[in-house]
Amino acid sequence: MAERLRVGILGATGTVGQRFIQMLEGHPFFEVGWLAASDRSTGRRYEDAVRWKLDTPVPAAVRDLPLSPATPDQAPSILFAALDTDIARELEPQFAAAGCAVISNSSAFRMQADVPLVIPEVNAAHLSLIELQGWRKHSGGFIVTNPNCSAIGLVLALKPLADRFGIESIFVSTMQAVSGAGYPGVPSLDILGNVVPFIKNEEEKMEAETMKLLGTLDGTSVRPYAVRMSAHCNRVAVEDGHTESVSIKLRRSATREQVLAAWSEFQPLAHHQLPTAPAQPVEFLAAEDRPQPRLDRMRGASLYPDRMRGAGMATTVGRLRPCSVLDWKFTVLSHNTIRGAAGAALLNAELLMQLGKLSGTHTRTAAVTA
Amino acid sequence: MAERLRVGILGATGTVGQRFIQMLEGHPFFEVGWLAASDRSTGRRYEDAVRWKLDTPVPAAVRDLPLSPATPDQAPSILFAALDTDIARELEPQFAAAGCAVISNSSAFRMQADVPLVIPEVNAAHLSLIELQGWRKHSGGFIVTNPNCSAIGLVLALKPLADRFGIESIFVSTMQAVSGAGYPGVPSLDILGNVVPFIKNEEEKMEAETMKLLGTLDGTSVRPYAVRMSAHCNRVAVEDGHTESVSIKLRRSATREQVLAAWSEFQPLAHHQLPTAPAQPVEFLAAEDRPQPRLDRMRGASLYPDRMRGAGMATTVGRLRPCSVLDWKFTVLSHNTIRGAAGAALLNAELLMQLGKLSGTHTRTAAVTA
Amino acid sequence: MAERLRVGILGATGTVGQRFIQMLEGHPFFEVGWLAASDRSTGRRYEDAVRWKLDTPVPAAVRDLPLSPATPDQAPSILFAALDTDIARELEPQFAAAGCAVISNSSAFRMQADVPLVIPEVNAAHLSLIELQGWRKHSGGFIVTNPNCSAIGLVLALKPLADRFGIESIFVSTMQAVSGAGYPGVPSLDILGNVVPFIKNEEEKMEAETMKLLGTLDGTSVRPYAVRMSAHCNRVAVEDGHTESVSIKLRRSATREQVLAAWSEFQPLAHHQLPTAPAQPVEFLAAEDRPQPRLDRMRGASLYPDRMRGAGMATTVGRLRPCSVLDWKFTVLSHNTIRGAAGAALLNAELLMQLGKLSGTHTRTAAVTA
Amino acid sequence: MAERLRVGILGATGTVGQRFIQMLEGHPFFEVGWLAASDRSTGRRYEDAVRWKLDTPVPAAVRDLPLSPATPDQAPSILFAALDTDIARELEPQFAAAGCAVISNSSAFRMQADVPLVIPEVNAAHLSLIELQGWRKHSGGFIVTNPNCSAIGLVLALKPLADRFGIESIFVSTMQAVSGAGYPGVPSLDILGNVVPFIKNEEEKMEAETMKLLGTLDGTSVRPYAVRMSAHCNRVAVEDGHTESVSIKLRRSATREQVLAAWSEFQPLAHHQLPTAPAQPVEFLAAEDRPQPRLDRMRGASLYPDRMRGAGMATTVGRLRPCSVLDWKFTVLSHNTIRGAAGAALLNAELLMQLGKLSGTHTRTAAVTA
Repeated sequence: MAERLRVGILGATGTVGQRFIQMLEGHPFFEVGWLAASDRSTGRRYEDAVRWKLDTPVPAAVRDLPLSPATPDQAPSILFAALDTDIARELEPQFAAAGCAVISNSSAFRMQADVPLVIPEVNAAHLSLIELQGWRKHSGGFIVTNPNCSAIGLVLALKPLADRFGIESIFVSTMQAVSGAGYPGVPSLDILGNVVPFIKNEEEKMEAETMKLLGTLDGTSVRPYAVRMSAHCNRVAVEDGHTESVSIKLRRSATREQVLAAWSEFQPLAHHQLPTAPAQPVEFLAAEDRPQPRLDRMRGASLYPDRMRGAGMATTVGRLRPCSVLDWKFTVLSHNTIRGAAGAALLNAELLMQLGKLSGTHTRTAAVTA
Repeated sequence: MAERLRVGILGATGTVGQRFIQMLEGHPFFEVGWLAASDRSTGRRYEDAVRWKLDTPVPAAVRDLPLSPATPDQAPSILFAALDTDIARELEPQFAAAGCAVISNSSAFRMQADVPLVIPEVNAAHLSLIELQGWRKHSGGFIVTNPNCSAIGLVLALKPLADRFGIESIFVSTMQAVSGAGYPGVPSLDILGNVVPFIKNEEEKMEAETMKLLGTLDGTSVRPYAVRMSAHCNRVAVEDGHTESVSIKLRRSATREQVLAAWSEFQPLAHHQLPTAPAQPVEFLAAEDRPQPRLDRMRGASLYPDRMRGAGMATTVGRLRPCSVLDWKFTVLSHNTIRGAAGAALLNAELLMQLGKLSGTHTRTAAVTA
Repeated sequence: MAERLRVGILGATGTVGQRFIQMLEGHPFFEVGWLAASDRSTGRRYEDAVRWKLDTPVPAAVRDLPLSPATPDQAPSILFAALDTDIARELEPQFAAAGCAVISNSSAFRMQADVPLVIPEVNAAHLSLIELQGWRKHSGGFIVTNPNCSAIGLVLALKPLADRFGIESIFVSTMQAVSGAGYPGVPSLDILGNVVPFIKNEEEKMEAETMKLLGTLDGTSVRPYAVRMSAHCNRVAVEDGHTESVSIKLRRSATREQVLAAWSEFQPLAHHQLPTAPAQPVEFLAAEDRPQPRLDRMRGASLYPDRMRGAGMATTVGRLRPCSVLDWKFTVLSHNTIRGAAGAALLNAELLMQLGKLSGTHTRTAAVTA
Repeated sequence: MAERLRVGILGATGTVGQRFIQMLEGHPFFEVGWLAASDRSTGRRYEDAVRWKLDTPVPAAVRDLPLSPATPDQAPSILFAALDTDIARELEPQFAAAGCAVISNSSAFRMQADVPLVIPEVNAAHLSLIELQGWRKHSGGFIVTNPNCSAIGLVLALKPLADRFGIESIFVSTMQAVSGAGYPGVPSLDILGNVVPFIKNEEEKMEAETMKLLGTLDGTSVRPYAVRMSAHCNRVAVEDGHTESVSIKLRRSATREQVLAAWSEFQPLAHHQLPTAPAQPVEFLAAEDRPQPRLDRMRGASLYPDRMRGAGMATTVGRLRPCSVLDWKFTVLSHNTIRGAAGAALLNAELLMQLGKLSGTHTRTAAVTA
């Protein structure tokens, strides 16, 4: 892997932008060469402008990068976007129209018919939707999105069961980490010793995205998965990691062993060589009191030589037991800013690259380095 | 209110025992005159033996009380019991056999056929089961229990709906406070920045107790309420107050207004004069992000002159909205060591007193004071 | 207590404004009749405009009060001010110039030579400074301030020792609650599982205010107390209650018994009848691991019939032991939004009233109620 | 590094024992081949017996190791000990007498005259004390200890200043993480939303150990450093990382630049090749609000090829500013179970190995693996 593609980050100073930078350090495919944030930061050194909130240092390679204006003029042709929804709605199309591949974590275009909403292990085929995008036709640019942080862990756990048994109903109650709200995000007076049983628009997004992710590509659009789903979303005093209590009704009955086998045999990316893909995307934990966010959110050993690269990319499940109302109940956990945000987008980009969807934009990159 | 009955507390130094002492300070019916704890504390002053964990001082009236052995010999004829299950299973029958009224917060006898499991607002009629108890027949003693801290808030919220519309299915996912596990209870390393998706036996208790509480007294036993119920129990980093995400399917459909009316009109104790009964046992909060444990657990103004007496006895509900899997979903909150433990037992005792069930034990009390 | 003076609150929707409203409910001297907050709230009902963050309900008497513009035109002649510093610097003089008594919790004028910075138990005599204020001379209005939330608990604990033994050096390291930063204040991502060893300007304020509070009124100004003082200010994951590790060097040596006696005999307001004054302003706790914010911040039984009125007004001290660098070391705790903010201002107002300093403004109050 | 020495762990299932196992995974010098814990675990597989509380998986190499009885019979000749003090006092001499090198994290023998209490960067020369130990003379075995978790970060920050300027007085107030108390350790009811201003014996240990660590080896014993020191120890709601507010008086005055230079130039192990040694043992952070435990506890890039090996081994300092009582004040942070416990012992072992003190025990190891 001598050459790496030069990429940029939109929203580079925010919570998810920081994760992008952390996860892209030493990445075998991509190299961060361009950063943009809000107007008031333009021109500042990255390290001076950012309020870095991760427990590893700001990577040396980006410390001195200047923050550019968020316009496509000088931007690389591959962009990771971590923008607030309103800003994403305005800016992302500008970049796509200018020929850029926009790998977005925002919710702005997730439900648009011709925009793929993708988890590589779940619905890689949906990526072909980009060929329908007007931007793609005119300039080669496109937008690909990943789901909400609360949907992604759930859908990873559900996908193997949907494939083998079908799912008729889903009940989920979440206990979500504060990092999901960004920074400054949740005031400490709201969450210390407390639970907030409300996250604006979260339940609606979680339900709609789950159905699109599990849906079927039907020529020019995705037919949503036919399932009844009800989400309760709660915020708890956890820094990172969304925990979810889940009950499901299957279309065809399954034994405990069959459910466990569906999870353990779920390795849809085994034939790919994606650096950030965990070897085991859904890990079942047998202990009666797991998964727990503080202990299990960083699971996900990669197949790749650098075994830390997949850390935080696995969804863990546990406490599988019969449900008296539906069929089975269990607990799901995933890291909301890694698997649920920056890592999700990064894995999408890795897959796009291996599918050759980023190749057209390669030549535009002047500053590819070894 | 010239005379007060002398009462004792079994397990007086524990988390719930402390709440008993706090709630009984200045109580119009009862006066604490006898305390028992584990053997190693016997003979010590209460204030010296207890690791007091409440934010009001140890009441002056009990500071100097000596801790007695946990035997019925010198005990008053009315006892509040806050014992661990194994100890309760052994000791409570000894006190009942000796003629004592045992008002128990333990789970040891809750599901025994002739032991009432009672929430005064929900199933006061079940108290007549005590007349079937062998202890009652031989010595006048009996055991009355209150439910688990996670069941009680839920059942208060469900009862008005069960009465008006019938309930077919219940889904509940809890976020429970650490005080529910007593002291030392949950290690801080397990809960800081974390969620533990498991509480031993809690889901089973919650399901079985809900059905008994909503059940029908059928001659000599309680016919459980016919409902499908599935509980997920989780521990979160909250000191006091259990929050629950609930979905239900009704037998007869109800509009939002009808559900709200069922809650607001639910005042089954209005004709009683129970000091610890909240004027409004189920309070609906209209704000989109309530109830929250830190802000709402102390609700429950009493009808009684001392308006603080009911604090912590109300169950609050909020976020009523349609459920795509069942019919309605909402959030329930109640204070787990007040409404869910000591206050539950105390309210049972107040009701027993007004029903004359404690009158037979009155004369035995030597030390009644004005 | 048939008549109560009508008072207003500037900054009524903030964290401290809410405490004012909570503490003034049923107050024997004062009645809240006027509220002001930021411009965008003007005209709204208080209950609609406020994000109420206390665990008691919004008092019925203020729920429907409209929010007025923050101008003196219609304001009562007694105002409690809980404004941000910059706004206080602009608005408080306007109200004082219009003849109002401004009882301020802001830091804007605390160090101004003719503005009293007062804790009633510590330096009531400093109140006479108001007679030097230009506003007082022209319109009768004046400004009185109370200290920073971190200084007030410390100075209460130091005053009895300064009086008896003199203090030469003070070392203090604080662990401050998040409510001290208001709302939204400290982001949860900054404080969950964390310590922030920095609070802007806090150390400077704490040092300067301590010297003024312990200083001597010298004709027309306060001569600061001559002491060497060094403060370290830290923020911790506590909702309410500032804990401080303190070491001091005395001018004249004192035994442990003499230090304890100085604290226990410190009752400078015993001859007053101030409703919010705790009977024992400095409580020493003998247990080896106290005081603790969650358990001890609400101490302070009042001499007044309503024993809850002083709750949160006592400073607690504990762990008195020799210091190898200075003379003695101990831990100090006080409630930062009660004793350290709203309660501090309220106690100042109660003292001003008993001193007759509020009498001139009495007649202006149209809406006095029984 | 083809050969690795076989080592054992005493107290392998506890909080520090787990860190030993985590840090020894893939270690270039040592390989874990023997584990012992309490009697009731003997014979169980490690993974079955341990309640693993770290966020990386149990290393594959130890999962199946059986727990041995804690006797020297079958033990390797190099032992890392993470035992409670009382047990350490009994067991460690048995192992030393049997010829083992006991690298202990316990406090049992730290202050014994012929037992080295060592931080490699601070007082490596003290290791020669082992030659005075009776065990050493008779069997070759010895005991080496590392300091308390609260002392170690402080002393690392002080050592460069003591060397250049001398230190006359030290004031320190700690905010210590709960992991320092082991598991189950601090009950959650004691620390959620709270501060506990007391840790049994901690202040005494911190003061005495600091003086021994900074002391001078004087023939056959260590002459303690002559300094006046006063410690306040507090427990806060932080999982890992002790934060300390420090003031010091120097013997010779120093400018800010001189203090910063002393820290930045402090690289006493630069000529060694110790895998776990951070390249920069004392890192100064310039931001006004750092260091913070959640963000900075994992600092410490190693000189060794595997750059994660030193993570958590650096002490960070920040907020250097003049002190009005002494000379300078600043904040110190270090990871209490890495630099403050398991990593401290491991670094001692690495240094002992390079000094040839472990060579005599090498041949005894039957099971050295490549």
